[in-house]
Amino acid sequence: MGDDCLFCRIVSGELPATVVYEDENVVAFLDHRPLFPGHTLLVPRQHVETLGDLPAKLVAPYFEAAQLLSLVVESAMDAEGTFVAMNNRVSQSVPHLHVHVVPRRRKDGLKGFFWPRTKYKSDEEMEDVRSKIAVALKKVKTQK
Amino acid sequence: MGDDCLFCRIVSGELPATVVYEDENVVAFLDHRPLFPGHTLLVPRQHVETLGDLPAKLVAPYFEAAQLLSLVVESAMDAEGTFVAMNNRVSQSVPHLHVHVVPRRRKDGLKGFFWPRTKYKSDEEMEDVRSKIAVALKKVKTQK
Repeated sequence: MGDDCLFCRIVSGELPATVVYEDENVVAFLDHRPLFPGHTLLVPRQHVETLGDLPAKLVAPYFEAAQLLSLVVESAMDAEGTFVAMNNRVSQSVPHLHVHVVPRRRKDGLKGFFWPRTKYKSDEEMEDVRSKIAVALKKVKTQK
Repeated sequence: MGDDCLFCRIVSGELPATVVYEDENVVAFLDHRPLFPGHTLLVPRQHVETLGDLPAKLVAPYFEAAQLLSLVVESAMDAEGTFVAMNNRVSQSVPHLHVHVVPRRRKDGLKGFFWPRTKYKSDEEMEDVRSKIAVALKKVKTQK
């Protein structure tokens, strides 16, 4: 990738962005369509599409930067907390992994965004899901 | 903490939960009020409230587990992607750090949950935010 990827072009400096943090592995810049001012996007310099695609050696530096930005964005915007999130493929507007770091306040009106929640219909349904995850865990660990 | 914390009581085994993954640093279990079946919560065994409070040595193992679960939950639920998110203090129902790993499908109806987005009124407002973050970055890095 590179030429076609919006975030690769920001990382390379070809496209302008309001960069708020960068180091050898990551670049962070202001989302120009923020949920709230200070809403920051953190991307790895290396092009990967999803969290699952992030090379093992980049997991620590990437999330150390996410942790730093959570503290920094909250402090900078005089917020009460943060929302730190990734969309992998579904609802992912740019196919280059990005962590959203969003400053939050208790009365900011986003109260209902983590809904609707549902319920498992039975213990059997929950056990069925547990079992599916156990199978997938073995499969994914074998592939790694 | 411990006695008062719901997730510490799950980690210790005092409260039942449908555990789908665990290792020496983390425990993951099904959210009993899922956005969709397979919605998993990943917690560090050690009680910390927010991402900012996670000790540096736990950042890598915690997010290696988050990465693994993103792959596993997507595969297990035959989903098309995942939503991986943390609420820090605001909208955080249990004050013990937890990553939500939610299986997603393109037509699952959660399309609008990452909205409403807004815009910066001017370049000056964006520059003001950048400047605030630069100041906070220096402050937070000094405290570390």
